[in-house]
Amino acid sequence: MRGGGAAMARLAVAARAFSSAGGGVAMVQGASRGIGLEFVRQLLRRSDQGRVVATCRAPGSAAELQKLKEEHAPGRVTVLPLDVTDETTIEAAAASIQETHGSLDLLINSTGILSIPNVIQPETTLSKVQKSSLLLAYEVNAVGPILVIKHMWPLLKIGGRSDTGRGFSLVANMSARVSSIGDNGLGGWHSYRASKTALNQLTKTVSVEFGRKDNITCILLHPGTVDSDLSRPFQRNVPKDKLFTREFSVQKLLSIIDSVKKSDNGKFFAWDGQEIPW
Amino acid sequence: MRGGGAAMARLAVAARAFSSAGGGVAMVQGASRGIGLEFVRQLLRRSDQGRVVATCRAPGSAAELQKLKEEHAPGRVTVLPLDVTDETTIEAAAASIQETHGSLDLLINSTGILSIPNVIQPETTLSKVQKSSLLLAYEVNAVGPILVIKHMWPLLKIGGRSDTGRGFSLVANMSARVSSIGDNGLGGWHSYRASKTALNQLTKTVSVEFGRKDNITCILLHPGTVDSDLSRPFQRNVPKDKLFTREFSVQKLLSIIDSVKKSDNGKFFAWDGQEIPW
Repeated sequence: MRGGGAAMARLAVAARAFSSAGGGVAMVQGASRGIGLEFVRQLLRRSDQGRVVATCRAPGSAAELQKLKEEHAPGRVTVLPLDVTDETTIEAAAASIQETHGSLDLLINSTGILSIPNVIQPETTLSKVQKSSLLLAYEVNAVGPILVIKHMWPLLKIGGRSDTGRGFSLVANMSARVSSIGDNGLGGWHSYRASKTALNQLTKTVSVEFGRKDNITCILLHPGTVDSDLSRPFQRNVPKDKLFTREFSVQKLLSIIDSVKKSDNGKFFAWDGQEIPW
Repeated sequence: MRGGGAAMARLAVAARAFSSAGGGVAMVQGASRGIGLEFVRQLLRRSDQGRVVATCRAPGSAAELQKLKEEHAPGRVTVLPLDVTDETTIEAAAASIQETHGSLDLLINSTGILSIPNVIQPETTLSKVQKSSLLLAYEVNAVGPILVIKHMWPLLKIGGRSDTGRGFSLVANMSARVSSIGDNGLGGWHSYRASKTALNQLTKTVSVEFGRKDNITCILLHPGTVDSDLSRPFQRNVPKDKLFTREFSVQKLLSIIDSVKKSDNGKFFAWDGQEIPW
């Protein structure tokens, strides 16, 4: 490993540790940047067999994803258009995956909206709460992932039996610690908090049905505060050792995804494996 | 108390017990029927001074409310139009209360949507989950009450000092046990559950800010399964002794409202006073 350095060595170790879970078909929804893009990168790195379906709103302008596709063997990366606010694109993606892969072993819902200049901002006080922000955050952060699961459900039912070393299909939804009601001591961020809390409830609700009928497990993940476009405007008060790189956070989250058990169905884990209270 | 009977005697005892909290100005949002209407009735019964602002979408066709207004002294009941999905009506109601009463001591958010034929139905499986239902339930059950609190906030800040025997203003939001994520063992009812879970988070978020700045306390209440239009299509599997009359449920909820302490800010209580896990 000439010229690798410590970081590369660590990743190589991680890749070996994850190799048992390298096969199968994984879908990363919201994969054009941030944590989603890093999931695609690390999932591809861990084996030379696993296939990744990466979705984003505009594949044409997702340069990093297209580059990953070119760097890997044909068929390993499929990039599909999917906008969580447009259900027809979710249905189309499901039909395309059905045709190309026939099943899904892992679904990672990684989209999330926190702030867009002049559209939505994390609220510092109730007086700044706007109906439009509440509804937009809900549509993207809660409704979107659940509709994705709804349409990928038939594919997840078939999956889980492939060479993933897991024995069941897994849905991992990106939540956030601020969604915890019990842990809410600071207030603020009404739209984001409420949407992610609702995502927790919807994931739990879905997990109950899957646990009864299907070989599918659902978990919620808190990635920590990650240096990404989403968190950038709000990093000022984050201590340096609490601001993770995407590489570190996704490595931690993948190690949870790899070690998850069926009995973890419906649980909410932080990046370090600790359960987060509702 | 000629011709009263046991039920009347019980109510008389309750009214005496509540009389210390009989003064001030209470607002019941969603008061044309069900639990909301019963809150208006019992709030009026408990003293001959307390004033009640009862809001509903269409006061003109709210016959029971208009009857209550006629039965009581002028000024005791104010009926105002308010549609939680139309923020301008919330602002108009706040302006009207400001002019007529100048403050609010108690705000009860009692609206809730669970089912409307051909529009929204509690989902029995993920495959029946519709985006339109998720968004509608969220708008009515979560966004609506929070916007009401936002616009009543200035009035609640001034309130709480009147003769309510409480010493602070109180916001009580009607939630439901099915909103508890920790308690969700059955699944289903995705839209309703998620919207009420989000309401819990929003109420907690608001309670943190109020607890820091204002003499206002917020709580969440679970009324039990009450014999009302909301629950009627879903009562089949409810044991008879678990299906409450509106009278019984509201009596229980008012006794919680009366005994609430500032340190209960942000908590979620069932009709029997037990705290419900998030």
